[in-house]
Amino acid sequence: MSTDLRSEAISRLLKPRSVAIIGASGDPQKTSGRPAAYLLKHGYAGKIFPVNPKLDRIGDWPCYPDIAALPEVPDVAIVLLGAERAHVAVRGLAALGTPCAIVLASGYGETGEIGAQRQAQLLEAAGTMRLLGPNTIGLVNLTDGIVLSPSGALEMDHFPVGPIGVVSQSGGILGSLLSRAAARGVGLSKLISTSNEVDLELSDFINALVDDDATRVIALYIESIRHPNKFRDAALRASRAGKPIVAFKIGRSEAGAKAAVSHTGALAGTDRMYDALFRQTGVIRAQTFSDLLDISAALATGRALHGKRIAILTSTGGAGTLVSDSLGMLGFDTPAPDATTAAALRALQTGDHAALDRNPIDVTLAGLEPTLLRGILKVLLASPSYDALTIIVGSSGVAQPELMAGAIQDCLPLSDKPVLAYISPHAPEATAILTHSGVPAFMSAESCAAAFAGMLHVQQWQAGYAGDAGTSCTSAIQAAPVDASDLPTGSLNEAQAKQLFSRFGVRCTRELEVSTPAQAEQAALSLCGLVVLKLLSNTVTHKSDVGGVAVGLSAEQIGPRLVRMAHDVERATGELPQRFLVQEMVAGGTEWILGMHRDPLGIAILLGQGGVTAELFQDTTLRLLPPEGGLTQLEALSMAQSLKCWPLLNGYRGSPLADVSALVNAIVAFSKMAAQLGDRLVEAEINPLFVLPEGQGVMAADGVASLR
Amino acid sequence: MSTDLRSEAISRLLKPRSVAIIGASGDPQKTSGRPAAYLLKHGYAGKIFPVNPKLDRIGDWPCYPDIAALPEVPDVAIVLLGAERAHVAVRGLAALGTPCAIVLASGYGETGEIGAQRQAQLLEAAGTMRLLGPNTIGLVNLTDGIVLSPSGALEMDHFPVGPIGVVSQSGGILGSLLSRAAARGVGLSKLISTSNEVDLELSDFINALVDDDATRVIALYIESIRHPNKFRDAALRASRAGKPIVAFKIGRSEAGAKAAVSHTGALAGTDRMYDALFRQTGVIRAQTFSDLLDISAALATGRALHGKRIAILTSTGGAGTLVSDSLGMLGFDTPAPDATTAAALRALQTGDHAALDRNPIDVTLAGLEPTLLRGILKVLLASPSYDALTIIVGSSGVAQPELMAGAIQDCLPLSDKPVLAYISPHAPEATAILTHSGVPAFMSAESCAAAFAGMLHVQQWQAGYAGDAGTSCTSAIQAAPVDASDLPTGSLNEAQAKQLFSRFGVRCTRELEVSTPAQAEQAALSLCGLVVLKLLSNTVTHKSDVGGVAVGLSAEQIGPRLVRMAHDVERATGELPQRFLVQEMVAGGTEWILGMHRDPLGIAILLGQGGVTAELFQDTTLRLLPPEGGLTQLEALSMAQSLKCWPLLNGYRGSPLADVSALVNAIVAFSKMAAQLGDRLVEAEINPLFVLPEGQGVMAADGVASLR
Repeated sequence: MSTDLRSEAISRLLKPRSVAIIGASGDPQKTSGRPAAYLLKHGYAGKIFPVNPKLDRIGDWPCYPDIAALPEVPDVAIVLLGAERAHVAVRGLAALGTPCAIVLASGYGETGEIGAQRQAQLLEAAGTMRLLGPNTIGLVNLTDGIVLSPSGALEMDHFPVGPIGVVSQSGGILGSLLSRAAARGVGLSKLISTSNEVDLELSDFINALVDDDATRVIALYIESIRHPNKFRDAALRASRAGKPIVAFKIGRSEAGAKAAVSHTGALAGTDRMYDALFRQTGVIRAQTFSDLLDISAALATGRALHGKRIAILTSTGGAGTLVSDSLGMLGFDTPAPDATTAAALRALQTGDHAALDRNPIDVTLAGLEPTLLRGILKVLLASPSYDALTIIVGSSGVAQPELMAGAIQDCLPLSDKPVLAYISPHAPEATAILTHSGVPAFMSAESCAAAFAGMLHVQQWQAGYAGDAGTSCTSAIQAAPVDASDLPTGSLNEAQAKQLFSRFGVRCTRELEVSTPAQAEQAALSLCGLVVLKLLSNTVTHKSDVGGVAVGLSAEQIGPRLVRMAHDVERATGELPQRFLVQEMVAGGTEWILGMHRDPLGIAILLGQGGVTAELFQDTTLRLLPPEGGLTQLEALSMAQSLKCWPLLNGYRGSPLADVSALVNAIVAFSKMAAQLGDRLVEAEINPLFVLPEGQGVMAADGVASLR
Repeated sequence: MSTDLRSEAISRLLKPRSVAIIGASGDPQKTSGRPAAYLLKHGYAGKIFPVNPKLDRIGDWPCYPDIAALPEVPDVAIVLLGAERAHVAVRGLAALGTPCAIVLASGYGETGEIGAQRQAQLLEAAGTMRLLGPNTIGLVNLTDGIVLSPSGALEMDHFPVGPIGVVSQSGGILGSLLSRAAARGVGLSKLISTSNEVDLELSDFINALVDDDATRVIALYIESIRHPNKFRDAALRASRAGKPIVAFKIGRSEAGAKAAVSHTGALAGTDRMYDALFRQTGVIRAQTFSDLLDISAALATGRALHGKRIAILTSTGGAGTLVSDSLGMLGFDTPAPDATTAAALRALQTGDHAALDRNPIDVTLAGLEPTLLRGILKVLLASPSYDALTIIVGSSGVAQPELMAGAIQDCLPLSDKPVLAYISPHAPEATAILTHSGVPAFMSAESCAAAFAGMLHVQQWQAGYAGDAGTSCTSAIQAAPVDASDLPTGSLNEAQAKQLFSRFGVRCTRELEVSTPAQAEQAALSLCGLVVLKLLSNTVTHKSDVGGVAVGLSAEQIGPRLVRMAHDVERATGELPQRFLVQEMVAGGTEWILGMHRDPLGIAILLGQGGVTAELFQDTTLRLLPPEGGLTQLEALSMAQSLKCWPLLNGYRGSPLADVSALVNAIVAFSKMAAQLGDRLVEAEINPLFVLPEGQGVMAADGVASLR
């Protein structure tokens, strides 16, 4: 099916003119009775065609005995039959030419082998008809008042409508978000539960929400991204359309579990791949479930945060300090007012002025005096000292939330600075009233800070990395591919691995392969200075464990040392080694790891500090290879800069500046190797990669690779 | 005043038989009218004496023109006058023999110099009368229905009464906690706002709550601990009484700010000292403000968590996964049911059983079928696979919360395992009903996990460290003090510093002081092997910056090297150095830092990884010196074990086991030095301290110290 037809089917699904309900019940207490009842309750204006052979009517609607008897082809069908029968209905609907069906039944891919077979059968039965589900709770279009779902959350009478579109891979969570948003006064546009994603999936709906005029912010509840490249395209498309995406992903602690079992996993668990994917596509990752709505609500105002300086206006000191502290934890500044701002504030209030020279700015009576509040807001919104404003609402404010909301609303048009509120007492009504009137209000100081952080992320992404992500494709394609027709296969030895890395542009230590003491001595003389002697083997991975590494040898020492190494290795492995490497010693610089990591999400490049303690501190970072090719220089630089040990490259404590541009080039070269070789490259890691002082480049001193 | 008199005054304050209200107004809308109105509203049965020269009556009470006219001495007086007049009333009350006064006015220590003078004046006026405040919102005794506060939160009609006592250093936060707890169904006993703490402070009320039969859990909102030793004693007393303390402390991000400015601060900011104090006294630190109530509510059940295995019972898959993930993030396990448990679950339910072999345990209809729910709860509470249970409440459960709460309540007496609930939709009533019926319910999965973590902390503390903290005093006192009568003063040079450390039992490198090349050669010969040559200076701190360190020298090399070093240092400092150290070279082992850190909270011992990257990863830990003396061996061991780089000592990746017991002894010795020298020791740090392989001890290779 073409993209146009697919998006046309999704448009119908989100805004159907007619809905058939297969297996509808007349009892609105039953799950099978709810979809029709909820459509009616929430004001659906289109046609409803219930199908049930046992009933003549459901409410005011005639009931049809089977799908073939439907009076016209519906835009959408909701299939309420169990898993053992749903595929029959799906086949009938497809035969009729129905564009799209929603299958609610569970008992498919989520339950094991038999369920997986059922799911395949369902997909086959659908043919070219689009499917949402199975195991979905359906969807809710609040913009147009169309609810295609039996979710118990729809028992509520009214939902605030707004610009946040939600896609959830869990049906229960869709209901949770719907009811929580309503209670908070957060307005939503569409909510879609994709669940098993046998056909339509996460990214289809991201694209649909990008195209939806009523949606300005996209909120995602993610359990697993099945099509990472499609997700990447959709997320970058949303970014280009200026619609930020906020994602909460579960499975964070699986990464912790994996970390315990596998060496590579410890450095780069699956959850970290999601971090990389989100980072590279501008997606804001919500750290807690509640942050998903909190950050989205702040972004829904459409206001832009251009800096980190936040004014806190409070009438209750303790809560102001609490918010200030939470903002500080996320790197925000809460500077005191500049002299002009402070003077303007003082002019508004009589009495003891001390608290107006500080931030939090303490105005004891503001909550009760709208004129004073307006005056102060005007001063702070106009002040060059602040990029945004938080208003702390205490008990005086929550007692008269409309008064407070009105005063703030009057001032909002004066500036495009973000204005958020923190509600100190328990006051759900005040929270909802403020949020609904354009001032997102939070019951948690940490959420308020997370919301600002999300807003800042959007600005930083738009200003910097977004452009780079857009051009990575071009720069990767421009480079001519390296001739890779004659590469060895299987597990490479150290010399072969380094020849591979060299061919793609990573400088490696000079070295010579030898078999005898005399050859070793000759090699050492030709390399000048002290050398390293190593066992050369395609099978022994940990050379030092079998006595296969000796450092700091002179030409005179190396012959006898080779003899001893041969004996040591023979004792450890049972085989007398035949081949050795004589290698120049690297002096100075710091040790790094540069590797690749395979994952269901794709191939990633890993950079981290080398040496024995690297794993303990887990100071590594990942970037997914884009489908078009390698990483850009900007991406490579951002990898190095994102590490805690970045200062080691940057003149930390008087150490020499490192050759960062050589490191960046090595990362790009390594990433292009991984991109070009694709599935042929099973494994590749340089460890250690020495980064030398500025002008001296980098040097791969050891490494492993495996090709097929 | 003796401890008995002090605690007697606090008892009166918490449960007064009579209350005088100085400056009372007849208008309950005014702050000065509220205390009397709230006392009445919340059912105070004692006597109320309003004082106001302008009024004859307030409500049913006669109003007195001044303090001297009071008909009897009140147990407590609430002073509602402004800061400029409050001290006059306080003096009058003290003259009358009033045990305790609450001063609400602000404008004292928190506002600057004039305020601080007022505060001193207030304290002087009080004499032996106890003061709560100033700048306080007062206190609320829910156990006995006595509210001595104008907090707007008291507008609510009803508050659940329970076993959690709250002390808050912010008045606004007291109101916030009061209203939030009520909305959640969390029962409190007493709430006290201490604010400026001119007299009665945090620890006085911790002690009062330890003595209070109605309180089983103590929750603290802390801005700053003014008397750390008193806090330590009170916290350990609470621990011995089996009353856990949960603390939320603000000022976390100030530590981040300090970290940027000072070298020592970067490794050990003030907030980390609070971590140390809490860790050493068994106090559970709440990471977010909402966790303060959440963890307290879980502890208030009195149930003990004996392990990390949590069963998740759910009727909505998505939310079960969300809770499972949050539990995993904090290190909890969610194992599948064992065969017996699974069989027992299967026996209760017909149909598709697959989801009963997993955890989350998915029982689609449990929320609506109390008999089934009871059966499943019995199985899980009896199962040897689980230490605790989380029940996920979906839309079916929140529709009938009493039904669900009743079924759970029936089962609670069958086991003492903790049972918590997570509420997936927005459902404040269900949350309150469940919590009130003994099943603490949470709207956030992260909070649910934090609550379990708090419960586990209590068990671990009681099982392990508590005993150690109790004995630290004894073991420190038993050691004979070192003769410290002849120590030098001022900034010590390296040799003097190491002589100091040696005297207290830390082994240091062997070394000899020299002035000439010939002496240096002689010294190198006597030390055997390669040596280190260092500048010896009381003023130059960073020897290597001025060319004052040379390593790996033989006896033949050292003479000429000394001459060159002398020139290098002269060029860098302008002075020709006269003294040098010849020192044995340390081979093998890992490098550590062992130091002391001074802070308003006290003196702490710092242990961390040495070397250039240590600061970047901030892998250091602190322990406060107890007032009685040094650290115990168990505390010293726990310091090493709490570091991320602990595995380096413990045979990490095939490296030799390190001499941990020598490290422990060195930490204890260093701590006893700090304890014995007290204020005489201005600064002390060993860096690096080499920890050698097992049996070879430790070796201080360099260090600084300053004495007065």
